[in-house]
Amino acid sequence: MPDGGFAYSHLFAKHLPPPAPRWTGFPKHNFIGGHNDPARIPAAALAEAATAVLRRRGADLALYNFDGPQGYLGLRQLVVDKVAQRPAIKCTTDDVLITSGSGQAIDLVNGLLLEHGDTVILEEFTYGGALTKLKRLGVNVIGAPLDDEGLTIDGLARIIEDLGRKEIRPKYVYTIPTVQNPTGSILPRERREALLALTRKHGVPVFEDECYADLTWDGSGPPSLYAMDPQQVIHIGSFSKTLAPSLRLGYAVAVPEVLSRLVACKREADSGTGALDQMVVAEYFSQNFDDHVGGLTQTLHEKLDTMVEAVEREFGTAIEKMWYPKGGIFLWLKLPDRVDVTKLVAPAAKAGVAFNPGPEWSCNAGETKSHLRLCFALPSKDVIRQGVAEFARVCFEETGIPERSANIRRAVSSN
Amino acid sequence: MPDGGFAYSHLFAKHLPPPAPRWTGFPKHNFIGGHNDPARIPAAALAEAATAVLRRRGADLALYNFDGPQGYLGLRQLVVDKVAQRPAIKCTTDDVLITSGSGQAIDLVNGLLLEHGDTVILEEFTYGGALTKLKRLGVNVIGAPLDDEGLTIDGLARIIEDLGRKEIRPKYVYTIPTVQNPTGSILPRERREALLALTRKHGVPVFEDECYADLTWDGSGPPSLYAMDPQQVIHIGSFSKTLAPSLRLGYAVAVPEVLSRLVACKREADSGTGALDQMVVAEYFSQNFDDHVGGLTQTLHEKLDTMVEAVEREFGTAIEKMWYPKGGIFLWLKLPDRVDVTKLVAPAAKAGVAFNPGPEWSCNAGETKSHLRLCFALPSKDVIRQGVAEFARVCFEETGIPERSANIRRAVSSN
Repeated sequence: MPDGGFAYSHLFAKHLPPPAPRWTGFPKHNFIGGHNDPARIPAAALAEAATAVLRRRGADLALYNFDGPQGYLGLRQLVVDKVAQRPAIKCTTDDVLITSGSGQAIDLVNGLLLEHGDTVILEEFTYGGALTKLKRLGVNVIGAPLDDEGLTIDGLARIIEDLGRKEIRPKYVYTIPTVQNPTGSILPRERREALLALTRKHGVPVFEDECYADLTWDGSGPPSLYAMDPQQVIHIGSFSKTLAPSLRLGYAVAVPEVLSRLVACKREADSGTGALDQMVVAEYFSQNFDDHVGGLTQTLHEKLDTMVEAVEREFGTAIEKMWYPKGGIFLWLKLPDRVDVTKLVAPAAKAGVAFNPGPEWSCNAGETKSHLRLCFALPSKDVIRQGVAEFARVCFEETGIPERSANIRRAVSSN
Repeated sequence: MPDGGFAYSHLFAKHLPPPAPRWTGFPKHNFIGGHNDPARIPAAALAEAATAVLRRRGADLALYNFDGPQGYLGLRQLVVDKVAQRPAIKCTTDDVLITSGSGQAIDLVNGLLLEHGDTVILEEFTYGGALTKLKRLGVNVIGAPLDDEGLTIDGLARIIEDLGRKEIRPKYVYTIPTVQNPTGSILPRERREALLALTRKHGVPVFEDECYADLTWDGSGPPSLYAMDPQQVIHIGSFSKTLAPSLRLGYAVAVPEVLSRLVACKREADSGTGALDQMVVAEYFSQNFDDHVGGLTQTLHEKLDTMVEAVEREFGTAIEKMWYPKGGIFLWLKLPDRVDVTKLVAPAAKAGVAFNPGPEWSCNAGETKSHLRLCFALPSKDVIRQGVAEFARVCFEETGIPERSANIRRAVSSN
């Protein structure tokens, strides 16, 4: 053994994730994750923004958290101005905490409220990252039913009441009310009111994730839950989807009782969020938010249409259900029950196609083996068309479904 | 109660930190933390770097971790080139993980190796942040003795052997061999060899933190421990001290067996480190590292001399020991035993003076109540002089020490 044969394996902590394999690049037809449209990154304008803000505040980079532990004041002001629009939230920069992506905001809220063995309610189909984090914390997750408009209040009420009979009070209801992930629905205003009344009655906080809410096709939507009742709602959002996910920027908005705790938890977690990312996004978006998001949304809507056409052409009647989203970057689909998409991951990857299998985006993994999520923000329209065709080919070869593509009957290939 | 009287306090998790108070700005004479010199932030050059790199790679911001989960390739290459110099580490970009500050690197290494109840060995005086993290993890910390050249090998051997008799094997020895925090010593080469031989014999990994190692007054120093034995050492570093702490950038260098695990742990912890911070630092430092660090070090050395003069003038013989650092940004001092610096924190703060009390930077808090750390990178020379004079005044008013300042006997003031 080299170097004295020093060995680590017996020193490692228990319950580690497996070692990361060497990274070999992105798949050719990449329909996973929250990537954005590269053509919509305003590189020149970001460079101008960087130049302007560095001229003004560059020397401040010498200090940790130079505007305090809640983050760069300019970005907090941008959040205040932004959430005053559609979500109709009235708040000040004191009510905002900048986080390293909304993922960190989820970690902080979980750290604030959850202990091992606690119970939380999520939407039956939901953000896979939230599920992964809860699993690691040893928290029980219950999925509340969705329909085409989002969370059903009857279904949620039944769950809360059932839990109550077992003397379990859920620690929160996590919801993505505007452009639900993965179904793309928008919860109507009346349901929002009913949701707040129900959870208030049972003393359950609402954890509202509005990561995609700026990307609705018509730019409108009901006010956020936080706008309707700040006291019982913790609101989070992100700049990953409106601008660029590699700039790790999210935020939380909450009443002082909650925010002061989240700030304290963040101070334990890190020494602040990267300043240049914050400064440049604030500088650019304070001038360009509406224009940028308007243009991006139009591009995304066109890409969605391309993807829907491709899916319909390639899968035809094999699509049992397609949730046509009201905004965002993804399409949620159901294939026939006898297609187990988890068995398609490897052969699809071999063909250069990556997708999110339903079980990873669902509270009831066993019941969503024929669901899948396809993200359309990153790939070009050509890549979308080719990738969906490739995926249909792989799916047919593995399962015999879809039998027809582009209205032509498929046959099993000879190889 | 407003808004239906929704109350959180009974929902909060146990063991939370206390709520963060509202931030009211930095103290006037700020001698705490790892802040840097604002006059040394190259704002215009960073703007040029941002413009150049955004022109070349801006579209890639649309992807999470666009160069893979180990971080921006340009920054990993910069680390490879940088550590090939003084620390003499031979590695490739595959061996480097970019982290959100070296604080995250510490979290990842702790997550990799430590369980509640484990034992680790640190230097008796050490980085306060490392101590805080270990306390939260419920890990036992043992302080190994330091002399003016750093860790003493005899002292460390005794500790490892004592533990061995109790059948305890420490999970790592955490050391800051080059510009030790807070004493500023540089561990000589022979001691490095002895340290590696000792720990190898007992199967204990070495966790080497080189956050300040680029900031030695003469720019030289022995090779890093990792350079001398990569297999048994995990090496971390930072760009906070060489450039700017609000750009949250650190790195870990380790052999594949370890690095692949750290990468996996980072993927669980976040979705990458802020890309613009990474890109701009790589772009700027790939052209300017030696010049920038040379100029910064000269400034820091001058500020140290200003601080040493001020401390000698204001405290005179009341300084029992001053560790004159061989680089870095801080001065570690000992006042007479009957001065308890923890009781000076509040009155000093009232006078606009902030400092790190010894117990926060020590494995044996009870034995370092008369020690303190003063950072000199952020304040101007005038602020250093005024702040040290203010601090001496507060110290005298609270403890009667120092009796003489600027060779003039002090009298208790009438107010």
